[in-house]
Amino acid sequence: MSLAVAAAHSADYLALMTTPRTLKSPVLDPSTITPRTTSAYPTEAFRKVVAGRIKRALGDALALSTFGVNLTRLEPGAASALRHWHRRQDEFVFVLEGELTLITDEGAQILTPGMCAGFPGGVPNGHHLVNRTSTPATYLEIGDRLPGDAAEYPDVDLHVRATSAGPKYSHKDGRPYE
Amino acid sequence: MSLAVAAAHSADYLALMTTPRTLKSPVLDPSTITPRTTSAYPTEAFRKVVAGRIKRALGDALALSTFGVNLTRLEPGAASALRHWHRRQDEFVFVLEGELTLITDEGAQILTPGMCAGFPGGVPNGHHLVNRTSTPATYLEIGDRLPGDAAEYPDVDLHVRATSAGPKYSHKDGRPYE
Repeated sequence: MSLAVAAAHSADYLALMTTPRTLKSPVLDPSTITPRTTSAYPTEAFRKVVAGRIKRALGDALALSTFGVNLTRLEPGAASALRHWHRRQDEFVFVLEGELTLITDEGAQILTPGMCAGFPGGVPNGHHLVNRTSTPATYLEIGDRLPGDAAEYPDVDLHVRATSAGPKYSHKDGRPYE
Repeated sequence: MSLAVAAAHSADYLALMTTPRTLKSPVLDPSTITPRTTSAYPTEAFRKVVAGRIKRALGDALALSTFGVNLTRLEPGAASALRHWHRRQDEFVFVLEGELTLITDEGAQILTPGMCAGFPGGVPNGHHLVNRTSTPATYLEIGDRLPGDAAEYPDVDLHVRATSAGPKYSHKDGRPYE
């Protein structure tokens, strides 16, 4: 049975970690990472788009600093983010389980397990992943952490720039959100 | 059936790509990438360690530049590399299929699908993955591309530094290999 077929039968990617293990650094069982479901978006309407997004920060847990690695699960209806593109950061996603719809300026494409996509920094093509199915979908996402990044959101009045204190959101004209 | 169980029954991770698709940038089907089986190691004895290693450079194919992403398959008996650690580069691996043995200074650990490991730059703990099973194993490997990297090989007389023209190998005392 292929991974793709298996994925269609698997309700939860993390369920594969049911056998207790004693792992030592630098090995990590992703299911041991506390998931994050919050969003830093400045409005409730924006946060609603990513409700059902569950991130596990694998790279941080492994003390990696030059890029981030998240194991991210999208419940049915959830999106990875508001559609956006980065000024500097390169991004990569690899689908592990379920089916995800990638939305870009060119429209929609379906990604299944084993497929990947990449978004070089500076390419002005807004993108996000949406789970339009009735079962969860899981993917790995990697992004570099070079300084000076910012992101543009073609569909909404939002802008963000990376700072040492975290993302700073504003309206497109620079006014802060209240 | 979990991914882990499925992996044990799957002879070839890329077999999941048997359905023809018409994919548009920025989506990539890894099976369309020409695999690389060569090694730049300077001796036949060193190259023999990685015989059976098949790399597909996903990040390069997607025009990513700040980090590399390879989908790498190890045939039975093959190793990911000679055991090494990087002076600057952060590395991350995520197992997709099969079973891999991670060797570090602390000994051996078995990694199965869904498990990951990370190797922060500058941590002097040599590591590599070896496929000690009778079936192929596949993993994703990510590494940053910050300048000034070098790697140390605790088990053999080898040193490498990254240059704009590619890796430059030498003996530990700096003498070039003939």
